[in-house]
Amino acid sequence: MTHAMPAITISLMVDAVKWVKNPDGTHEVHLLDQRALPVRTEFFVCRDHDDMAKGIRDMVVRGAPAIGISAAFGVALGAQSFLRKSLQDAFVPYMEDVSSILAGTRPTAVNLFWAIQRMRPFWEKGSRQTAPEITEGLFKEAQRIKEEDIHLNRRMGGHGQELIRDGSTILTHCNAGALATGGYGTALGVIRAAVEAGKTIRVFADETRPYLQGARLTAYELVEDGIPTTLITDGMAASLMAMKKIDAVIVGADRVTANGDVANKIGTYGLAVLAKAHGIPFYVAVPFSTIDFDMSSGSQIPIEQRSPDEVTHIGPGVRIAPEGVSVYNPAFDVTPADLVTALITEKGVFKPSELRSKAF
Amino acid sequence: MTHAMPAITISLMVDAVKWVKNPDGTHEVHLLDQRALPVRTEFFVCRDHDDMAKGIRDMVVRGAPAIGISAAFGVALGAQSFLRKSLQDAFVPYMEDVSSILAGTRPTAVNLFWAIQRMRPFWEKGSRQTAPEITEGLFKEAQRIKEEDIHLNRRMGGHGQELIRDGSTILTHCNAGALATGGYGTALGVIRAAVEAGKTIRVFADETRPYLQGARLTAYELVEDGIPTTLITDGMAASLMAMKKIDAVIVGADRVTANGDVANKIGTYGLAVLAKAHGIPFYVAVPFSTIDFDMSSGSQIPIEQRSPDEVTHIGPGVRIAPEGVSVYNPAFDVTPADLVTALITEKGVFKPSELRSKAF
Repeated sequence: MTHAMPAITISLMVDAVKWVKNPDGTHEVHLLDQRALPVRTEFFVCRDHDDMAKGIRDMVVRGAPAIGISAAFGVALGAQSFLRKSLQDAFVPYMEDVSSILAGTRPTAVNLFWAIQRMRPFWEKGSRQTAPEITEGLFKEAQRIKEEDIHLNRRMGGHGQELIRDGSTILTHCNAGALATGGYGTALGVIRAAVEAGKTIRVFADETRPYLQGARLTAYELVEDGIPTTLITDGMAASLMAMKKIDAVIVGADRVTANGDVANKIGTYGLAVLAKAHGIPFYVAVPFSTIDFDMSSGSQIPIEQRSPDEVTHIGPGVRIAPEGVSVYNPAFDVTPADLVTALITEKGVFKPSELRSKAF
Repeated sequence: MTHAMPAITISLMVDAVKWVKNPDGTHEVHLLDQRALPVRTEFFVCRDHDDMAKGIRDMVVRGAPAIGISAAFGVALGAQSFLRKSLQDAFVPYMEDVSSILAGTRPTAVNLFWAIQRMRPFWEKGSRQTAPEITEGLFKEAQRIKEEDIHLNRRMGGHGQELIRDGSTILTHCNAGALATGGYGTALGVIRAAVEAGKTIRVFADETRPYLQGARLTAYELVEDGIPTTLITDGMAASLMAMKKIDAVIVGADRVTANGDVANKIGTYGLAVLAKAHGIPFYVAVPFSTIDFDMSSGSQIPIEQRSPDEVTHIGPGVRIAPEGVSVYNPAFDVTPADLVTALITEKGVFKPSELRSKAF
């Protein structure tokens, strides 16, 4: 055998947001229920925009790009239910309501608002299209957003993997993988691209309390892909850094502001401070749809506060804290740009300070 | 009402390690089962040293000072079972075995070895005492260790609370409270002493994955005492520091070496780095029995690796990670002395560099 080993191609099993056309011509969107993973594979079927709003709000689907894709499909489902219910209201005000219901689900991920805006021209302008034609157009546009996202993630991965030396060990936090995107992933996309380029990569995955996206989702994706992955609790990262066992940290983001500040899953900021203290590069992998050029700095980003139950209970029923204790449960924190070594985007790798000049 | 408000006295409800004499003259030691707290109050009854070794190994009791006290009672229970079983072996070699079984339970907390050593003179030297007299003496010595520990904790609290300004918000990690000691606590003892001195103190308690000692035990103790406490996940501490909501960090320790390096619950080192980066004082509250003057630096401390199940499951049955993922689960990390603002001990408050001169 004299052939060079071919670069590995990773085939993704998971599809977080799937458009399904029924034989009767109606549309559904099937969300892979990320609350049940990795123990059970279940789907949450959305038939209208209210189903989708519930799916986003209750974190059936999560991850900034996947939230954007889901919201786009939510707009399309809204148009479909207008048709099915033969509502008497005018279509445009109705679609304003649909958009605002979807926009009210989660406040931090900017892709949500970006995707809803992107759907607007398809229903807003009085056109010669019939309502069924508009609905069909909306589903196709949502699917286009999803496919573009996968394409962007692969380009992002290609740029980002050049930063990763063969034999590296990468720490990641939360889930910025196929489950958080159209497929492939942002932070995990960079890791996948490095593996596809033939590099040997090991991953430490923070479990990411309280919602355990690292334990439940990142570990699941990477085990499925056969990428060697070690699960740790969030408090273990620092001592691994001190032992020089981490070569780089790569995370995704829910919103990046024009100055390069990064809102991402709670715990990200602490990792960035620790990475700097240990001389470890800290990368953020984001598509441009996650960059909010209308905000000048991270202090303006609204941070979602979630239910105390996520901290006091594991799963639906296991109480782990006493009655009567107060809980603080912000879903995100903000990492200042000066702690970010580079942003990995579909347009290339930039320093946060270079971002504004790339707003083309 | 013109009386000045009296200083508050906190009465402790919890007794982690309780010596019980039965009507028939036999002794038992009842461990408050910390695995079941805060949901259930159960006791783990130890009738011999094997019971106690299991109780320590399985974390029915935990916390360096409480482990030491428990091991001392374990030695006494060993002597009792020698008597009860009318063993033919010689008493002294038998007690060597008992001591080594107890010493093999957990490797990091130095109080374990310290307490077992302290019991040695009571059984080692051939004396004129009968075996029942020796056994009685051993139980009394174990109880003395426990009562001394409570006394030391109160003195430590008195010294430590002088560092805490009225109105402070304290962050603590793991449980260094009444449950981890004879009573009152080390880190929580400082907080209790500040409250007893009439200061208004608020506490943020890290939940402390994987074993959740913060959520289950610290939150429980402080809620019982009526001290305002907010539970957070371990990844939230950094963003609270950035928002200037933390005035000081206080933790306990499992072993402090002669140079002032601190082994404590995994996650402590990261907090110390974060505290330094934010200009927040980082205090370690320890009795001298936790200081190992035979070790010159923290790199010599054996770090216990625990079961992957603690990370992949919550409680006995709830799986939170996929099959096939690797897990790294060290119970402790080492914080270098230069990140420790001061050690709070029963002999006063010292800089880590002053420690060696205090080895009297």
